[in-house]
Amino acid sequence: MSYQKITDLLGKEADSLLQHACKTFPKELLHAPSPDFIDNVFVNSNRNPQVLRNLAAIYNHGRLGGTGYLSILPVDQGIEHTAGASFAKNPMYFDPENIIKLALEAGSNAVATTFGNLASVARKYAHKIPFLVKLNHNELLTYPTKYDQIMFGSVEDAWNLGAAAVGATIYFGSEESDRQIVEVAKAFERAHQLGLPTVLWCYTRNNAFKKDGVNYETAADITAQANHLGVTIQADIIKQKMPDVNAGFTTIGFSKTDPLMYSELTTDHPIDMCRYQVANCYMGRAGLINSGGESKGASDLADSVKNAVINKRAGGSGLILGRRSFQRPFAEGVDFLHNIQDVYLAKEIGLA
Amino acid sequence: MSYQKITDLLGKEADSLLQHACKTFPKELLHAPSPDFIDNVFVNSNRNPQVLRNLAAIYNHGRLGGTGYLSILPVDQGIEHTAGASFAKNPMYFDPENIIKLALEAGSNAVATTFGNLASVARKYAHKIPFLVKLNHNELLTYPTKYDQIMFGSVEDAWNLGAAAVGATIYFGSEESDRQIVEVAKAFERAHQLGLPTVLWCYTRNNAFKKDGVNYETAADITAQANHLGVTIQADIIKQKMPDVNAGFTTIGFSKTDPLMYSELTTDHPIDMCRYQVANCYMGRAGLINSGGESKGASDLADSVKNAVINKRAGGSGLILGRRSFQRPFAEGVDFLHNIQDVYLAKEIGLA
Amino acid sequence: MSYQKITDLLGKEADSLLQHACKTFPKELLHAPSPDFIDNVFVNSNRNPQVLRNLAAIYNHGRLGGTGYLSILPVDQGIEHTAGASFAKNPMYFDPENIIKLALEAGSNAVATTFGNLASVARKYAHKIPFLVKLNHNELLTYPTKYDQIMFGSVEDAWNLGAAAVGATIYFGSEESDRQIVEVAKAFERAHQLGLPTVLWCYTRNNAFKKDGVNYETAADITAQANHLGVTIQADIIKQKMPDVNAGFTTIGFSKTDPLMYSELTTDHPIDMCRYQVANCYMGRAGLINSGGESKGASDLADSVKNAVINKRAGGSGLILGRRSFQRPFAEGVDFLHNIQDVYLAKEIGLA
Amino acid sequence: MSYQKITDLLGKEADSLLQHACKTFPKELLHAPSPDFIDNVFVNSNRNPQVLRNLAAIYNHGRLGGTGYLSILPVDQGIEHTAGASFAKNPMYFDPENIIKLALEAGSNAVATTFGNLASVARKYAHKIPFLVKLNHNELLTYPTKYDQIMFGSVEDAWNLGAAAVGATIYFGSEESDRQIVEVAKAFERAHQLGLPTVLWCYTRNNAFKKDGVNYETAADITAQANHLGVTIQADIIKQKMPDVNAGFTTIGFSKTDPLMYSELTTDHPIDMCRYQVANCYMGRAGLINSGGESKGASDLADSVKNAVINKRAGGSGLILGRRSFQRPFAEGVDFLHNIQDVYLAKEIGLA
Amino acid sequence: MSYQKITDLLGKEADSLLQHACKTFPKELLHAPSPDFIDNVFVNSNRNPQVLRNLAAIYNHGRLGGTGYLSILPVDQGIEHTAGASFAKNPMYFDPENIIKLALEAGSNAVATTFGNLASVARKYAHKIPFLVKLNHNELLTYPTKYDQIMFGSVEDAWNLGAAAVGATIYFGSEESDRQIVEVAKAFERAHQLGLPTVLWCYTRNNAFKKDGVNYETAADITAQANHLGVTIQADIIKQKMPDVNAGFTTIGFSKTDPLMYSELTTDHPIDMCRYQVANCYMGRAGLINSGGESKGASDLADSVKNAVINKRAGGSGLILGRRSFQRPFAEGVDFLHNIQDVYLAKEIGLA
Repeated sequence: MSYQKITDLLGKEADSLLQHACKTFPKELLHAPSPDFIDNVFVNSNRNPQVLRNLAAIYNHGRLGGTGYLSILPVDQGIEHTAGASFAKNPMYFDPENIIKLALEAGSNAVATTFGNLASVARKYAHKIPFLVKLNHNELLTYPTKYDQIMFGSVEDAWNLGAAAVGATIYFGSEESDRQIVEVAKAFERAHQLGLPTVLWCYTRNNAFKKDGVNYETAADITAQANHLGVTIQADIIKQKMPDVNAGFTTIGFSKTDPLMYSELTTDHPIDMCRYQVANCYMGRAGLINSGGESKGASDLADSVKNAVINKRAGGSGLILGRRSFQRPFAEGVDFLHNIQDVYLAKEIGLA
Repeated sequence: MSYQKITDLLGKEADSLLQHACKTFPKELLHAPSPDFIDNVFVNSNRNPQVLRNLAAIYNHGRLGGTGYLSILPVDQGIEHTAGASFAKNPMYFDPENIIKLALEAGSNAVATTFGNLASVARKYAHKIPFLVKLNHNELLTYPTKYDQIMFGSVEDAWNLGAAAVGATIYFGSEESDRQIVEVAKAFERAHQLGLPTVLWCYTRNNAFKKDGVNYETAADITAQANHLGVTIQADIIKQKMPDVNAGFTTIGFSKTDPLMYSELTTDHPIDMCRYQVANCYMGRAGLINSGGESKGASDLADSVKNAVINKRAGGSGLILGRRSFQRPFAEGVDFLHNIQDVYLAKEIGLA
Repeated sequence: MSYQKITDLLGKEADSLLQHACKTFPKELLHAPSPDFIDNVFVNSNRNPQVLRNLAAIYNHGRLGGTGYLSILPVDQGIEHTAGASFAKNPMYFDPENIIKLALEAGSNAVATTFGNLASVARKYAHKIPFLVKLNHNELLTYPTKYDQIMFGSVEDAWNLGAAAVGATIYFGSEESDRQIVEVAKAFERAHQLGLPTVLWCYTRNNAFKKDGVNYETAADITAQANHLGVTIQADIIKQKMPDVNAGFTTIGFSKTDPLMYSELTTDHPIDMCRYQVANCYMGRAGLINSGGESKGASDLADSVKNAVINKRAGGSGLILGRRSFQRPFAEGVDFLHNIQDVYLAKEIGLA
Repeated sequence: MSYQKITDLLGKEADSLLQHACKTFPKELLHAPSPDFIDNVFVNSNRNPQVLRNLAAIYNHGRLGGTGYLSILPVDQGIEHTAGASFAKNPMYFDPENIIKLALEAGSNAVATTFGNLASVARKYAHKIPFLVKLNHNELLTYPTKYDQIMFGSVEDAWNLGAAAVGATIYFGSEESDRQIVEVAKAFERAHQLGLPTVLWCYTRNNAFKKDGVNYETAADITAQANHLGVTIQADIIKQKMPDVNAGFTTIGFSKTDPLMYSELTTDHPIDMCRYQVANCYMGRAGLINSGGESKGASDLADSVKNAVINKRAGGSGLILGRRSFQRPFAEGVDFLHNIQDVYLAKEIGLA
Repeated sequence: MSYQKITDLLGKEADSLLQHACKTFPKELLHAPSPDFIDNVFVNSNRNPQVLRNLAAIYNHGRLGGTGYLSILPVDQGIEHTAGASFAKNPMYFDPENIIKLALEAGSNAVATTFGNLASVARKYAHKIPFLVKLNHNELLTYPTKYDQIMFGSVEDAWNLGAAAVGATIYFGSEESDRQIVEVAKAFERAHQLGLPTVLWCYTRNNAFKKDGVNYETAADITAQANHLGVTIQADIIKQKMPDVNAGFTTIGFSKTDPLMYSELTTDHPIDMCRYQVANCYMGRAGLINSGGESKGASDLADSVKNAVINKRAGGSGLILGRRSFQRPFAEGVDFLHNIQDVYLAKEIGLA
C-alpha cells in the first residue's frame, strides 16, 4: 500500500495525524523502535541471552522483520467469545492449522494463540513461525457470566511445544486483579528463566469504569497506568487497547492523579494519548502494541490504518490484529495485514 | 449386525440419517477417523512418542482395532449414582473384575473406570486391555446434593497401576468450572509427560440451563463450545453427550453468538448438530465420542444404533456406552456392544 | 468360648442368625476371608510387595493369625470424646503403653491408635505387634462443636515410627467430605508407596440423616455406598458401623436408587444388610470390619458376639472393638476380646 | 531459699499443700521427673538420637541441670502485649541480649523467645545456653483485635540460628484451632527430623469459655484435654496454665464427659487438679511445665512458690516464668528465679 | 551544607532540637550508628557472611559511605500513586534509568525501587550502586480502592537481577497484616539465605486509626510496636515514618499498654518519640531510617533537615527520601539529597 493510499484512507484526518508533533513527551525522550532496538534496550536488562535470542527471532521474522516493528496475529477469541461466534464468518479457522497458515502467509512476526491450537500442529510449524502461547483466558461458558483470567497451561508446557514467547492477560481494576498480578508475575519469571519473552495483555476491566455512556476502560490515564504495572512485572511487550478518552481516574473518582497529567502529559490528540501509553512503558523500553477491536466490515481498513499511524507516530511498536483479519476470506485477511504492515514500512511516517 | 438390520432399526428415520449430506461443514474439511488417523493428525502435534504409542494401543485394540473408531466401556456410575442403583440390575458388577471381563469379551478398545476398580485387578488385566483411569468424580452421598468433580487419585498413581490413558470430567458452565479447568489442565499436562493420552468428559452442568422444560445442557451450541475448551486444554479425545437441541446461548441469554452459528453452521438435522460438535474438536483433530445415556430397556438398541450412525456420519470417532451394556445380562451386554461396533464396521455407512 | 456359649448368648435369635442363608448375594459371589485371602485377592492388585508383606504381617498376627479374620484394638476416643471421658473407667489407659499391652495380651492382629500414643513407645513395641496409625481425627474441644477430620501427622511420620498400616476417617455425607476424600486419597496413595496398607473408617455423618427419631447414618444403603467410595480410593480394609436400618436414601430423599436395591439386594435380616456392605467392598476384595459402638456394660458381650456372628456370616473380616474392651478392667478386657475372637475361630459358623 | 522459707511463704496453706497425698492418680502410676527421665521415657519413643541429645542438653543445663526438672525463661510478650507494655518496668530488655543474660545468670535450663531476639545474638550465645525458639505468635497490633497464632519463621531457620528446641502455641477451643493443630503438627514433625525437641503452649482460648464471671480457659478438665491433644501431636514438653477451677465442659456445656472425671479423677485440691493435667500428658511421659501469669509485685514470690510446690508435687516438671522475673530489676529477677528453682531442689518436697 | 545553614533552617526550633538530651532511653543504652556498626552488631547475629558483605556494600557506598549512616533513594510511588502522578513534575523519571542516575549522582547508599525498574537496566548499573529491590506493593488501580501489599516478584529473581538487598512493606494493623507478616517473614528468610539484607517498610494502616482529626498511623507507640514486630521477623533495617503524635493505643483503645510507656519511655519531644522507635529496633541493633513524606515544595528542605536532625540525634541510621528529590529538576534533587546527607556528616550533631 502506497503512502498516498494511506493518506487517502486517513481522509480529512490525514494532516492532523501525519503532521502532528508531540510536545508532551518529545520524541527524543523515547526508546523508539529501530532495527537495533534489542541492542539498545534489552542488552543491558536482566533478560538472559536466550530471551534475547527469542526476542530477536520475533523481531526479525516476517514482513516487518528487522524494522523494530511488530505485526502479530492473535487468535484466542474462540475461548471467550465462543469458537462459533469467532469463526462463523470463516469456518476454516475451526481448524487451527489455518490460523498458523494465515500468520505465515501474512508475514506476521508471530502467531499468538492457545495451547490447544499450537499444540495440535507444533512439530509442523514451530520452526516456521514464532509461537506466542497465550497462557490464560477468560471463558464465558460459565453462567452467570464472570470475568476472570485463569491459567490454561504452564509455561513449561508452552516451552515444550516450541513457544518463542508467552502471553497473558491481567484485568487491571477488577476484583481479581491482585491474584492475577501475582500469578502472571510468577509465570513471567518462569518464562524468562526458560528464555521466553513475555507479552502482557494489559487490559482494564471493571463495570464501574463506565460512566454517562463513556467506557473509561480505554481511557489514556487508566490504560497507561496498567502499562506501568505491566512493565513492573517485567513484560517485554505490552498489548494495550488504543486510548480514545482521558481523565478516567478523575471522572470515576479513584486512585491518585496530578493535574499536570492532563495539562502537560496528555492532550486530546490521539497520538498524544497513545504516547502517554508509550511513556508508561518505561519511555518505550517495552514495546507497545495496540490492538484492533472487533471487525466492522468495510471501515476496518481505514480504521486500522489510522490506528497504525497513531501507534507508529506515538512511538509504539506495532499492531496486533485478529478479528479484522481472520473474519475475512483468507486472501483478504492476508491483504489486510499486509496493508497495515505497509504503514510501518512507510519511511514517510515517522515519530511525532 | 448387518447393514440391513441397521436400516431396520433406524426405521422411518433411515433415509434421513443414512442419505443426509452435510452442508454446514463439508466433509472435506474434516480430519476424519481412518486407519492412519494418528499418522495424519497426531504425529505433527506436541504429543510425545509415548503418548502416540498409547494412543495406538487404544486405537488398535478390540473389534474396532485399526479402523480409526473407538468403542469404550465406561463404568463409573457407581460413584455418582451409587453402586446399588448402578449394579442392581446385574449385581455381578459389584465385583470390578467382571467390568473388565465385559470390556474384554465385548472387544472394546478400552475400559474406562475408577482407580479402585482397575487397581484391584491391575496385575491381571493391564496387559490384556487398555485401562482408561477416570481421575475425578462427582459423588451424591453429600447432603445437600452438590455438583463438583473432585480428584480421586493422581496421574502418577494411574500410570503405576498400568493405565494406557486417563480421563476427567469438567462441568462447564457451573460455578466450579474454572477451578476444574485449571485442575484438569494440570493433570492432562502431567499425563502427557507420562505418555498417557487424555480423554475429557466435556459436560455442561448448570441448573439455569433448563428453560421451559428444555434442558440446554445438551444443546449443540453449548456442548460444542465445551468441546472447544476441552481441546484447548489438550484433550486427545472428547466425550460429549449427543446434542438434541440448539440455540442454548440465545435462549438462556449469555455468552457470545453470531447469527451465522444457527443459520449456516448448524441445522436441525441431528447429524449437522453432531458435526458442529466435531468441528469444535478442531475439525476432528481430537476424536469425538458420544455417550449413551441411561438404559431404557427394549428401545436401547435402536436408540444406540441411531446414535452410532449419527456420530459416525457426523465425523465422530465412536460411542462410549456403559449402562446400556452392563445393566443387562453379561452375554446380552456383549452382544449389545458388538451390534453398536458393527455400525462402525459397516462400510456402507460413511461420512455425511 | 464354645460354640454352645455363642448360641446361648445369641438367645432366641440364635436360629435366625446361625441358620440364615443369604439369597441377595449368594456366598459364591464373594471373595470370602480365608487363609489365602492375600494370595487370592491382593496378589493381582496394584499393591506393591511391601504392602503385601505388611498386610500379611497383620493378617498373620495374634489369635486370629492365619485365618483371614481380623481382631483390631482401636483406641483413639481420647481425641474426640476427651481422654477423661474415655479412660475414666480404667485410668491406667491414660498411659498409652497399657493400650499396647492390652492389644498384645488380647492377641489382636493390630493396635490402632494415635501418633502420640504409638510414638511414645515406638521402639519398644513396633516389632511386637503391628501398629495401625490413625492419621486424622475430629476433636470436640473447639466450641461451638464442629465435625471435621483433620490430619494430626503425615504418612511419612507414621512409617518412621514403625507403622504396619495407616488409617483415616472420612465423614461421608457431610459438608467437608469432598475435601476429606481428596486429602485421604492422597494419604493412601503415599501410604501404598511406603508399603503401608490402608484402613478407612467409612463413616457417614450429617445431622440431616436423622429423621423421625431414626438415625440413617447407619442405614445399610448409605453405609454401603460409603464403602464403595472407600474402596474406590483404594482402602485395603473398610471399617464400618453395623447397619441397623435401611432405605436411608429414599427416606431422607437424596442420591440415586433403584427399587431393586431394597427388594433384591437387601432384606430386613441383619446378615443381609451386612452382606450388602460386603458387596459394596468389591464383593469382599477389601475386608469389612464392623465396629462396636459404646460400652453398655453387662449386655456388651452378647451384643458383640451377635455382631461378630453377623459380620462373619455376611462375609466380613472381623470386628474392631475399643471401648467395650478398654473400659473394663484389664483382664476382663482381654477375656472380652478373646471371646469375640472365638466366634471367628468357631468352625461351626460359616458364610450365610 | 530454705525449706523453712518455702513453708513460710505458703503460709496457712503449707500443710494442705505439703502434706497432701494424691488419691486420684496414685503417684506410682506416673512417669515422674528424675535424673534418668530421658532414659526411662524417651529412649523407647520414636524420637531420634539428636532429639535425645538436645533434650539432654536442656535437662542438664543450669541450676536444675540433672534433676529432671526445668526452669525456663520465656520472653515473647513483646509480640502480643507490645514491647512497650512488656519492658516498661525494665527497659534494658528492649535489647534482647539482656534477656539471654538474665537466663544465663538465673541458671535457667533454656531461654524461650522469638526469632528476632535469638537471631540478633545467635553466634554469641547459642553455645552458652539452650535456645528455645518460639515459632508462632499472636499480635494485637491488628484492629479490631483478633486471636490467632501465626508463624513468624520456619523450623529450618530456628535450627540455623542454633536452636536446641522449638515451641509453638495452639489456641485450643477457638475457631482457628484446627488450622493451628495441623500447622503445628507439621512444624513439630519437621523439628523432630532436625533433632529439635518440641514444646507446646497448650492454651485454650474462647470468649465463650467465660461464664458467670469465671474463666474456664484454666479449668482442669479443659486444659487437661488440651494437654492430651498436645502430646498426640508429639509435644515433648507441655506448657499449661495452672488450673484454678474445674467442670469447664459441663458448665459451658460441650464436648464429652464422664461423671467419674469429677468424682474420681479430680478433686478441688489444687495438686489433684494439676495431677489431672499431668495424667493427660501420658501419665507424665511428656513433662508438664506450668506458667506464671502476670506480675503483681510483692505477692509474686509467694504466689510462684505455691505454684512450684503444686506443680512439683503433682508430678510436673517445672515452671516457666517470664514477666515475674524480667519485670523486676535484673538482680531481683535472678534471685526470684533462683528462689523458685530452690523449690525443685528441695529434697523435702516430693510427689503427693 | 554548613552546620550554620542547618541551624538556620531549623529556625526557632534549633535549640530545642540540637541541645535536647534524651532521658527516656539514655544514649549509652543504644547500639548507635558508627563506622564499625556491622562489626559491633551484626557479626554476632545469625546473618551469614554474604549478608554481612552486602550490608557492608550498602553501608560503605556513596557520600555517607563508612559513617554508619544511610541515605537511600526510594522510587516506587509509580505503582501505588500512579506513574503519572508521581512523575508529572519531572517526566524524565518515566524512564527508570534516570532514577538510577539520580541515586548515583546524589551519592546515595542504595537505590530502592521496583523489579521492573531495576531489571530494565540491571547489567549496566548493578555493579555501580547497590540495588534494593522492593518485593511487594499496593496498587490503586483496583476499584473500589483496597489496601494490600502483594508480591510483584520473587527473592530469587531479585538476586538474579543483581540485588544487594530486598525490601517489603507490611501494613500492620490492617485486616491483611497477618498474611503479610507470614509472607514477608518467608521472603526475608529466603533473602538471608541468598545473602541479601532485608529492609522492612513498617507501616501501620487502618482507617480506624484516625480519630478526631488525628491520624495515629504515625503515633510513636503504634509505629514503635510495628518496628518491634519487624525486627522479630529479622528485618536488618527498619523504615518507619517520623512519629508526630503519641498515645495511639490508648486513644483508639486497643492492644496492651503500660502507663510508664507514656510517662517514662516517651515525652512530647520529637527526638524522644523517635528514640522510642529506635528502642523498639532492639535498641538500635536494626538501623532505623525515617521516610520523608510528600513533597510540598519550598518548605521541603527545612522540613527534611529537621527530620534528619531528629533521626540522627534519636539514634536513627538515616533518611530515605523519594518524592522530595525526584519531584524536582535533576540537579536540584541531587543538591537536596546532598544537603540532607550533610546533616549526617556534620560532626557537630551527635546523639541526644
